[in-house]
Amino acid sequence: MRLVELPNQIQRNVSEKLGFVPTMGALHAGHLSLIERAKSENDRVAVSIFVNPKQFGPREDFHRYPRPLEADLALCEKAGVDVVFHPSVETMYVNCPTSISVPELGDRYEGTFRPGHFDGVATVVLKLLNIVSPTTAYFGLKDLQQCSILAKMVQDLNVNVKLRFLETLREGDGLAMSSRNRFLSAEERTLAPIVFQELREFSTLMKNGGDSAKLLIKTQARIENSGFVVDYVDYIARTTFTPISELSIDGAIIFAGRIGTTRLIDNVLILV
Amino acid sequence: MRLVELPNQIQRNVSEKLGFVPTMGALHAGHLSLIERAKSENDRVAVSIFVNPKQFGPREDFHRYPRPLEADLALCEKAGVDVVFHPSVETMYVNCPTSISVPELGDRYEGTFRPGHFDGVATVVLKLLNIVSPTTAYFGLKDLQQCSILAKMVQDLNVNVKLRFLETLREGDGLAMSSRNRFLSAEERTLAPIVFQELREFSTLMKNGGDSAKLLIKTQARIENSGFVVDYVDYIARTTFTPISELSIDGAIIFAGRIGTTRLIDNVLILV
Repeated sequence: MRLVELPNQIQRNVSEKLGFVPTMGALHAGHLSLIERAKSENDRVAVSIFVNPKQFGPREDFHRYPRPLEADLALCEKAGVDVVFHPSVETMYVNCPTSISVPELGDRYEGTFRPGHFDGVATVVLKLLNIVSPTTAYFGLKDLQQCSILAKMVQDLNVNVKLRFLETLREGDGLAMSSRNRFLSAEERTLAPIVFQELREFSTLMKNGGDSAKLLIKTQARIENSGFVVDYVDYIARTTFTPISELSIDGAIIFAGRIGTTRLIDNVLILV
Repeated sequence: MRLVELPNQIQRNVSEKLGFVPTMGALHAGHLSLIERAKSENDRVAVSIFVNPKQFGPREDFHRYPRPLEADLALCEKAGVDVVFHPSVETMYVNCPTSISVPELGDRYEGTFRPGHFDGVATVVLKLLNIVSPTTAYFGLKDLQQCSILAKMVQDLNVNVKLRFLETLREGDGLAMSSRNRFLSAEERTLAPIVFQELREFSTLMKNGGDSAKLLIKTQARIENSGFVVDYVDYIARTTFTPISELSIDGAIIFAGRIGTTRLIDNVLILV
């Protein structure tokens, strides 16, 4: 496995299929499932590890975001990754004002609660795609709005890459795997699975003909009663991130909220 | 020569060197000099002809911008172009909110007088670069700020392409070649060369130790006295588009102004 810190050190063999898994490190089983899929579909696999300052707001957790580099590299090595790209912030962003925005999709939900977040995500992902030049890039559906935005960006800017979005991995009790779960206290950790339970319950009741508006109120109340401050719970079309009320092949229930000092997001696709 | 209207019809042979000249059509000798250079440095040459609505403001000349497609294609054929990419507005922009901006550089001068112009330029050029996937793309220095912005965008977004900026071609009397010159009345056409004369005079006097602030006032007054409404005349560093006062390897005098209903821009690099 090669560890590379500068863009021009990545030499792409264009005749090979290259799978790419962009990460912020603090790798967990969710990332490893992306790597595994990338390995099965490509000749070689690249992983990037870069905690991207441009996608954190001034009051967010950029500085406390976990950076267990040695453990991450060991996991990549064990998973059979061929190249890890681990650039410095300076390498990526010295005097770099250029920015990409995906209006509409990027302005809603996470875009409202984290202004600038998706511009930072879109910009770093395009940079990474241009540096690594993969055949296919892999992302987890836990960041559902991010997936929709990146798909839109790739389409709108005619970027020559395939994107694959893979199912959220969960702990045994249903909590979506996240690098931020480690910030939960023992008590918060026991409460956190309520989110997935309630999103799944919403999905079941919607499929049984429930009224989405009434169900949303109930879902939000139950999650709040468990100690969460809810930023939003909504039933939306995932290609546009606009609210819907009827069953749709494109439907999902999305959630963001804080328990203690930790902000978690989750979603359940409502497949009909 | 192939004429292609859809992005996926451009098949790039990655082992060949491909030169690319993005244009808005209405080709003149300036464009042909870019094509000629592209031919001399590459195995194949692609030209795009696309009047990009996103770089025109609501009160600008998008609708009257010339579109002599048949003449343009004949010129490309004669110049030995291999592929012309001529997409429709719908192909490029149906439901395409994603936008690129290059703040700072893109906010000044043309950016002030044409809000949104450079976002439109940066976005379409990145789309075209992704569609055509050239080794090298060629632009004319007449659009000096555009050149600086595109260089910044390519650097900031790690786009895998070389950019070449070639000298402005001029009519016998010094008027910079431009697709908009055809809008000049006979009288305006006789007055228009004053711009280049005065920019060149500024350059000469600066090199002889002149005071840039005083010279700029004189330059502007003389151009205004010929009938121009001047948007700006300034002496700037071309990598940042910030005003400077001393001689610099990076210096240029830039101009934009209107004569009658036609807006012209020009510049002279002050090479020391």
